[in-house]
Amino acid sequence: MHRFCSFFIFVGLLAAEPADWIWSARYVITENAARPVILNGAVAIRGERIVGVGTRAEIDARFQAKQRLDRPEAILAPGLINTHTHAAMSLFRGIADDLRLQDWLEKFIFPAEAKNVSAEFVRWGTRLGCLEMLLGGTTTFTDMYYFEDVVAEVAKEAGMRGVLGETIIGFPVADSKTPADTLKFTERYLIRFRGDPLVVAAVAPHALYTNSDETLRASRALANKYQAPLIIHLSETKKENDDTLEKRHMTPTKVLDSLGVWNGRSVAAHCVWVNEADLAILKERGVGVAHCPSSNMKLGSGVAPVVRMLALDMAVGLGPDGPAGSNNDFDLFEEMDLAAKLQKVTTLNPQALPAAAALEMATIRGARALGMEKEIGSLEDGKRADLIMVRLDRPNAVPLYDPISQMVYALKAGDVRDVMVNGKPVVRDARILTLDEKQILLKAAEYREKVSASLK
Amino acid sequence: MHRFCSFFIFVGLLAAEPADWIWSARYVITENAARPVILNGAVAIRGERIVGVGTRAEIDARFQAKQRLDRPEAILAPGLINTHTHAAMSLFRGIADDLRLQDWLEKFIFPAEAKNVSAEFVRWGTRLGCLEMLLGGTTTFTDMYYFEDVVAEVAKEAGMRGVLGETIIGFPVADSKTPADTLKFTERYLIRFRGDPLVVAAVAPHALYTNSDETLRASRALANKYQAPLIIHLSETKKENDDTLEKRHMTPTKVLDSLGVWNGRSVAAHCVWVNEADLAILKERGVGVAHCPSSNMKLGSGVAPVVRMLALDMAVGLGPDGPAGSNNDFDLFEEMDLAAKLQKVTTLNPQALPAAAALEMATIRGARALGMEKEIGSLEDGKRADLIMVRLDRPNAVPLYDPISQMVYALKAGDVRDVMVNGKPVVRDARILTLDEKQILLKAAEYREKVSASLK
Repeated sequence: MHRFCSFFIFVGLLAAEPADWIWSARYVITENAARPVILNGAVAIRGERIVGVGTRAEIDARFQAKQRLDRPEAILAPGLINTHTHAAMSLFRGIADDLRLQDWLEKFIFPAEAKNVSAEFVRWGTRLGCLEMLLGGTTTFTDMYYFEDVVAEVAKEAGMRGVLGETIIGFPVADSKTPADTLKFTERYLIRFRGDPLVVAAVAPHALYTNSDETLRASRALANKYQAPLIIHLSETKKENDDTLEKRHMTPTKVLDSLGVWNGRSVAAHCVWVNEADLAILKERGVGVAHCPSSNMKLGSGVAPVVRMLALDMAVGLGPDGPAGSNNDFDLFEEMDLAAKLQKVTTLNPQALPAAAALEMATIRGARALGMEKEIGSLEDGKRADLIMVRLDRPNAVPLYDPISQMVYALKAGDVRDVMVNGKPVVRDARILTLDEKQILLKAAEYREKVSASLK
Repeated sequence: MHRFCSFFIFVGLLAAEPADWIWSARYVITENAARPVILNGAVAIRGERIVGVGTRAEIDARFQAKQRLDRPEAILAPGLINTHTHAAMSLFRGIADDLRLQDWLEKFIFPAEAKNVSAEFVRWGTRLGCLEMLLGGTTTFTDMYYFEDVVAEVAKEAGMRGVLGETIIGFPVADSKTPADTLKFTERYLIRFRGDPLVVAAVAPHALYTNSDETLRASRALANKYQAPLIIHLSETKKENDDTLEKRHMTPTKVLDSLGVWNGRSVAAHCVWVNEADLAILKERGVGVAHCPSSNMKLGSGVAPVVRMLALDMAVGLGPDGPAGSNNDFDLFEEMDLAAKLQKVTTLNPQALPAAAALEMATIRGARALGMEKEIGSLEDGKRADLIMVRLDRPNAVPLYDPISQMVYALKAGDVRDVMVNGKPVVRDARILTLDEKQILLKAAEYREKVSASLK
């Protein structure tokens, strides 16, 4: 009896490993190759990081947590990763739908931006974007817009992870007169956010066709000086490719390669009109791809060769793009569903892109696209604690035969119940904890009036 | 002063037109061609029907309502119309995803159905389907399955409108040994539900390739005897067309025309592989088309020529199809969004199918597809009171520049707040009023165990 007691004391001591949180759920989708889904699983969190992943019994035996969240009817999964967006454009949501790209840009977006975009516009627009993204299970967003220092401030205020780059573009914009000025701004910004736990400051030349070769080379040099990622739009439309081929006798991918733009950590958004030689370059240079199915569909841009990219094991993530015409929301559940369905229908093959591949793109493969696979994208010891809890107690969630299939094809952004970023709960029971939702909705209504008036 | 008073008494008398309900909202989308969207609008309902549509001021001045529902931050719209589904298959949700049609049917669906489908299975599966559909704003569903008398009972219990037909198919199924038996069952069923305010009993031969010519002719004759619609699958896959062309040297549309199957009210689901001659036949015969973008994408079936169908002003509605592989939910918001985006991306034209056309397919054009455009599909005096209230006070709903664009591209099934069918509220503040949600979710979990065990 005495020996039996000391055995339990010994176990008790083992169980004393401290944790700040234990989150448990019926299914834990880890996106860890070795143990993809755990039934009745749990995750232990200490500070900013995950310190244990296993069955609930294993985790409860090992850790003593200060607080816990147990959801017997939920899926616990890695936070979703948005690899391409323009968050502040939320304030232009649906302002100009169903238009040709040229009309959309020239008649609506450029005039609307010229008349409305300010630091305050970006602050409220990004707040609205972060609010929608967090409530829908996105824990990391990759943004390219103006006043990106304000975007970074809002990301920190929201408690959201961001890879954020100020748009570098060859004409005067709201916060910068020349690309040279923007590069100077970007350098100060890179220094300001160096080592931040949430913000990864990036260098963001808009595209090949909107920048000089000199600016593009300078962007790469600046990114490499600070080990920052470079983010850029690439081969989104056929016109972009045709124009470049005519002018430079090379594809955009090849031109950028010849300029050395891919010589470092890079994320290219869209990559719709890329040929096999382009893919070989992107693969060779380790360029991450941000696939944006909603946007490519809605603007009629075309279908990116994602099946081929995955066959090459390229780092492909998902992005909703901006909500002002190219999409109307920031919903990564929808992008997963569309990524799978779009490849199936255009190849006439229902096996072309299965649910598991779509979920991977929204998590660990998306993390690879951003060069952050050691920090985020899966539930594994030592990674940043970015987690989401998705409810299974709604009619659209039952019955459940396969949690991964359910995540991609049946569950919705609205089913997300709790969200943690970097060890800190930011959504609890579908309510935001970090932002003032009511005030943001009021501001959105105010901006609606201002923007509408400005276009009359 | 005296004359002033009598003026008010006079207005009071004018306002005395009785109504059971007034529902008002910031935007009323009528789908009535003359007055598509009303700002600060309202609808008056008496008994099963709409008796007035106008601004809130107009309706309040004219009607004295027993009860009212005012939503200053919502869109009030016609209930959405599902023109093709298999509701009870909800219990097989996601059981076999990402498979080729043949494997999916032969290895999973047929065995699962053979071992599980019973009257009780259909009762609970349809309850789950109706629950999800009503909560998501669908007020009418078009169903083809087994034990369709049970489906009709559930529709009435749920307070949902249905166009419901027992599958007639050339092999023995759970509730019928031969097509002749099913035709007899169908005749009794047509008589039983004749004149029902919610159920439109239909005749539902599964497809050309699963029925004899004799059965198809008899199905048409039976439908016409009772002025019932005939519902059928048509040209869903390339294989179906190739096989028919090889065997009969005609397309399925042409074969069915030669058999006289289109000589009466008909709804054909899918119509992916239809050529210009087929479209001419379908148009000439007034056949309604149920377009199912999710299903066609997920099964890799192909892209229906919807732009061409709309150019011909054909009656095209939307359907989510069944949730066991061809889709995983019953979400008409998603089908609207996909219908628009799929046509845009495959034609490389962002104007190919605008938001208004997608919403029309989910409402008045869907009603036309079912031959019910005089009863449902728009908010107009004299029509059945099928209405939905969609909330605009969530982050994904703001700002709002165009209510129709917002409905199609930004709002979600989860944003539906209230639903009325045939004058009776069935969803209030996102809670179902007619079904026992808790019990349905428990039953779904029970069936999950049974179905999983049956496939081992």
